[in-house]
Amino acid sequence: MTYCVGLRLNKGLVFMSDTRTNAGVDNISTFRKMYTWCAPGDRLMTIMAAGNLATTQTVVSMLEEHSKAAEDRQPSIMKVPSMFEVARLIGETVREVIKTASDNGHQSESTFSATFILGGQVAGGAMRMFLIYPEGNFIEATDDNPFFQIGEHKYGKPILVRAYDPDMSFEMATKLLYVSFDSTLKSNLSVGLPLDLQFYELDSLTRGYEKRVVATDPYYSKISDGWSDALRTAFNSLPDFTRD
Amino acid sequence: MTYCVGLRLNKGLVFMSDTRTNAGVDNISTFRKMYTWCAPGDRLMTIMAAGNLATTQTVVSMLEEHSKAAEDRQPSIMKVPSMFEVARLIGETVREVIKTASDNGHQSESTFSATFILGGQVAGGAMRMFLIYPEGNFIEATDDNPFFQIGEHKYGKPILVRAYDPDMSFEMATKLLYVSFDSTLKSNLSVGLPLDLQFYELDSLTRGYEKRVVATDPYYSKISDGWSDALRTAFNSLPDFTRD
Repeated sequence: MTYCVGLRLNKGLVFMSDTRTNAGVDNISTFRKMYTWCAPGDRLMTIMAAGNLATTQTVVSMLEEHSKAAEDRQPSIMKVPSMFEVARLIGETVREVIKTASDNGHQSESTFSATFILGGQVAGGAMRMFLIYPEGNFIEATDDNPFFQIGEHKYGKPILVRAYDPDMSFEMATKLLYVSFDSTLKSNLSVGLPLDLQFYELDSLTRGYEKRVVATDPYYSKISDGWSDALRTAFNSLPDFTRD
Repeated sequence: MTYCVGLRLNKGLVFMSDTRTNAGVDNISTFRKMYTWCAPGDRLMTIMAAGNLATTQTVVSMLEEHSKAAEDRQPSIMKVPSMFEVARLIGETVREVIKTASDNGHQSESTFSATFILGGQVAGGAMRMFLIYPEGNFIEATDDNPFFQIGEHKYGKPILVRAYDPDMSFEMATKLLYVSFDSTLKSNLSVGLPLDLQFYELDSLTRGYEKRVVATDPYYSKISDGWSDALRTAFNSLPDFTRD
């Protein structure tokens, strides 16, 4: 599995993804699931991927036009005029890759499904974030639904639902994501450290702050330990049940 | 879906289950998922069920020997000498019911799977709690794993993992379950009010406190609203992230 979250704030976008890939519990590896394309001043696009690793890596390679000689590579996602077109291009690529893998004439044990979160901005357009489905279609984050989760999303959702606020600073949003990821990591072996974190500041059209959160990260330990204590305190602060 | 939790405390057992049954989101009903058999002074057994409703109701009917005339009904689970034997009997019944439903000669769209939590005590034996699988085998709650969840368990797990304590009172355990259920209800439509709550006090060999928690329950509202505030306070109490 995987866990990735994209948050749309008024100040920008925050992306966080884990790096664990597994085929069974005895075959785990670390793979980056966050990819960024940037032409400073013109566009910034970040995607995060959950699902079949062969599919997601092929999609990224195709977007980067690795099928062409190095000097001929001019990825179309660097040229299309809007985030909507970028989403459409990625959706088409995903659908094509899954279709090719599935039409191989024999039944496979696994499916080739993959889901993507895309966020970013193209000069002249608004900052936007999309959730792209394996079928190639997609939805956009709105005020009603300002964040997307893909992969193992259930454990980490309750805190996002309750503490997210569109006016949050990047720092507060990061704290929120640390808590959400920590809840997931504590409950599910298929999501694992290190984590990748990235900010996109509204209208900056360039890469923002980035960090890889490793197991020894002192702030991660503080949040992980502190959240247990804070939850217990929160729990104790609630009124007690009495039998009626 | 369903959400049921059985907690093993030093003082006894606490059971909580929701009552929503659904076949698609446009076909929902309320069904009790908690069943109790009791011979005061001799034994108390409570089960909670998740899975195919036809399977779980048939299992309960068979345990109650509804296949016999009313005057001949002497359920074996009221006679076997230990909780272990009760678990074995239920496991065999589950397996038999699923096997019968599956061997019907045509392919069905749904599976007939069902999982049970069984807790209770038989005179002369220890209080025990089991998780019974569709295959009929089972595991017992231990000090390392003192609670069982069945159904839609992910949303409500992080708080259980962090706030459970075997020395808790029944009242504290109830508060914990309210929070765990509220987190689940807020995130998943297939788990719904009312909830059934039941206590079993160690060595009492009789039914303990019972309650049906309905949507208008004032304590439930207090917990549901209070937990949002308490979580935000807890979140704010954590140290802030700083870019390095």
